[in-house]
Amino acid sequence: MFEIEGHLEVRDHRLFIGGVDAVDLVGEHGSPIFVTNEERIRENYRRYQRAFPDADVYYAVKANGNLTILRILAKEGAGADVFSGGELYMALLAGIPRDRILFNGNSKTERELRYALQTGVRLSVDSLDELKTLASLARESGKVAEIAIRVNPAISPETHPKIATGLSTSKFGIPYTQVIEAYDMAERLEGVKPIGIHCHIGSQITDLTPFVETVKRMMEMVEQIDRLGVKLEFLDLGSGLGIPYRKDEPVPTPEDLADAILPVFKECSDAIGLHPRLILEPGRYITGDTTVLLTKVNLVKEANKRFVGVDAGFNLLIRPAMYDAYHYVLVANKADLPPSGLYTIAGPICESGDILAHDRELPAVERGDVIAVLDAGAYGFSMSSQYNGRPRAAEILVSKGRAYVIREHETVNDLLAKQRVPPHLL
Amino acid sequence: MFEIEGHLEVRDHRLFIGGVDAVDLVGEHGSPIFVTNEERIRENYRRYQRAFPDADVYYAVKANGNLTILRILAKEGAGADVFSGGELYMALLAGIPRDRILFNGNSKTERELRYALQTGVRLSVDSLDELKTLASLARESGKVAEIAIRVNPAISPETHPKIATGLSTSKFGIPYTQVIEAYDMAERLEGVKPIGIHCHIGSQITDLTPFVETVKRMMEMVEQIDRLGVKLEFLDLGSGLGIPYRKDEPVPTPEDLADAILPVFKECSDAIGLHPRLILEPGRYITGDTTVLLTKVNLVKEANKRFVGVDAGFNLLIRPAMYDAYHYVLVANKADLPPSGLYTIAGPICESGDILAHDRELPAVERGDVIAVLDAGAYGFSMSSQYNGRPRAAEILVSKGRAYVIREHETVNDLLAKQRVPPHLL
Repeated sequence: MFEIEGHLEVRDHRLFIGGVDAVDLVGEHGSPIFVTNEERIRENYRRYQRAFPDADVYYAVKANGNLTILRILAKEGAGADVFSGGELYMALLAGIPRDRILFNGNSKTERELRYALQTGVRLSVDSLDELKTLASLARESGKVAEIAIRVNPAISPETHPKIATGLSTSKFGIPYTQVIEAYDMAERLEGVKPIGIHCHIGSQITDLTPFVETVKRMMEMVEQIDRLGVKLEFLDLGSGLGIPYRKDEPVPTPEDLADAILPVFKECSDAIGLHPRLILEPGRYITGDTTVLLTKVNLVKEANKRFVGVDAGFNLLIRPAMYDAYHYVLVANKADLPPSGLYTIAGPICESGDILAHDRELPAVERGDVIAVLDAGAYGFSMSSQYNGRPRAAEILVSKGRAYVIREHETVNDLLAKQRVPPHLL
Repeated sequence: MFEIEGHLEVRDHRLFIGGVDAVDLVGEHGSPIFVTNEERIRENYRRYQRAFPDADVYYAVKANGNLTILRILAKEGAGADVFSGGELYMALLAGIPRDRILFNGNSKTERELRYALQTGVRLSVDSLDELKTLASLARESGKVAEIAIRVNPAISPETHPKIATGLSTSKFGIPYTQVIEAYDMAERLEGVKPIGIHCHIGSQITDLTPFVETVKRMMEMVEQIDRLGVKLEFLDLGSGLGIPYRKDEPVPTPEDLADAILPVFKECSDAIGLHPRLILEPGRYITGDTTVLLTKVNLVKEANKRFVGVDAGFNLLIRPAMYDAYHYVLVANKADLPPSGLYTIAGPICESGDILAHDRELPAVERGDVIAVLDAGAYGFSMSSQYNGRPRAAEILVSKGRAYVIREHETVNDLLAKQRVPPHLL
């Protein structure tokens, strides 16, 4: 077992999260549940912000858009990277100031663009077509939208292809060869005002080289855009810093990222005499390790492998099934007992791909045990579904040794909530 | 364009579904929407049932568990294959008789087992551990559960590995080498009564050979189990028949499946003198082609490729992103116009994998057009999420030329519905 540290600890063989007994939480609130530690969110945010003292940190709401979590980050002073009208609403409701929100997205609807204009947030514009639509809607409503252009920098990080967003073939952004044309158009269009530039190269990236390349390429563009007469106030680099899901491999920290890119950023800035403000959009780093998914063991089966059937599957955590992602697991009620063999943790969903963890060394597992899936705070609940007719799980916040339900368990009535049977079928 | 037939047709360049104008539906109900044709559900069910006149057809609720769709199938006389307590509730609520429901699942909770016992439905038992738990719960409540054992027949169909469920390494079922032991135990345990045998080799299978192999292997087991003194009333073969997503490749029909397996089934039955009733569990075949996902074009972008940004992505239809699945697309308001070039249909989700269709020949696409994604009736809404803060889409039923809302659009309030901010954070 890896050295459990920080907000997780083991007492009397049991896993504690932020000082609260995980097994007791399952006893009280049922299974499965997501348990999030408030203090860890604050620590992660502060650490990232401290590594980049002169940058604005905009939390990527897509990672985990729970209102309580957004509220904690709002109180910490975070901004928000939002990707839909729904995320924008949640960020504002949570108290994140509108001047610290950037509305991103490769395919916004007219309704979303209108909503952004009403709220007055800045937008990252992803295409020339969107630029024209936005300018026209802004003129209609007598507003001027402050914008960045999302650039596709054609950078290949080593990550899962589905989440590498800055490849030349990706759907995101304007190819960097067309960027000057885009700023030229934006500058001339009434209704929009270009004040920033934006890119994002992917997610769960553990090699810093592509970030450095990105800074250089983006600063070249800042210079070229300046020559057009467009003064850019900010450079938004996205984020995408990986977290150590596997525990046994080193991944770069925010300080490593800062050490890698800040000197290059300063050098480029000084060389061209332009000093845009840096914006960063961490999501996974802020919430990923704050949350544990607790799921009860229904059965243990000896087949070709030894399977542990649990009550949470890719309905609640799709990363293993979708991206072959690794999540560390442990037995919450036998957290430091010696391993007894290899176990494969299988969810209850009707597909062979619904395996949360393959062939893990665990203490002897039996029915009634509680499996803890670590690092479930980013792209966990946010990607969850009701597949196989399964109501979604509750979310619990632990704070100063106390537990709060921040999202109730769904019931079958939530599956029915929006449904209506037509008269001729009743 | 493929020859549009059956319940889809083109009039004045516009796509009609069950006689209703798709573009009008978007005008009236907004975008995105799923549109399902009641008549097509009935046709598919009847065709499947006709191909297997002596078998029981249990619709696999996992494919699409909409209550109205279940109600239509209930009125047709279908049974149900359910995979959770939630699906069981929905099937019963829809009016499917309890003696035509089989509760499947590799990892049922105690609560689900108790619920199944209360309702009196039959269960497919997936492991020896579950067998013991079920028997003990049944004794506690003074009931006897009629069961089948889910067998892993170790058959490899050619389909996506994530949905090949009968491989020897799969999490499903009891290895066929342990099946005799399982029936022996079941026969001796109080609280359970083995009356059937069950298997399922996968989904979207287009080669019939593995089905034939499965029948032979299962009938061998029926014979061996009979020698134990256990009389099996039914053999549930699952289903997994593929549908022609690509339109240009032939896939076997229910009649082809019947021609392939019924003679072998009869031959085996006659040879061993045992005639269990056949149960089949089609899901995709019944609802797959009944439904079109309509999604509006937000923008067209010339980048490395020509991208069409639409308002539905893998939040609503995850099959392309998760299984590299192909769905036929057309422009609903230009359905029979000549192609003008290659287009890639991109959803609004924050991942590069969010592409509904790659490089398709389409007529000139522009903002405001409506893209129709065909065959979205199975594993579409059922796997949908609110990822990126996107409320889920409405479902519309067309029936005899009229349209009915069978599921309302979600709003941002549905994202908030179960959430609660703790006092110290207000």
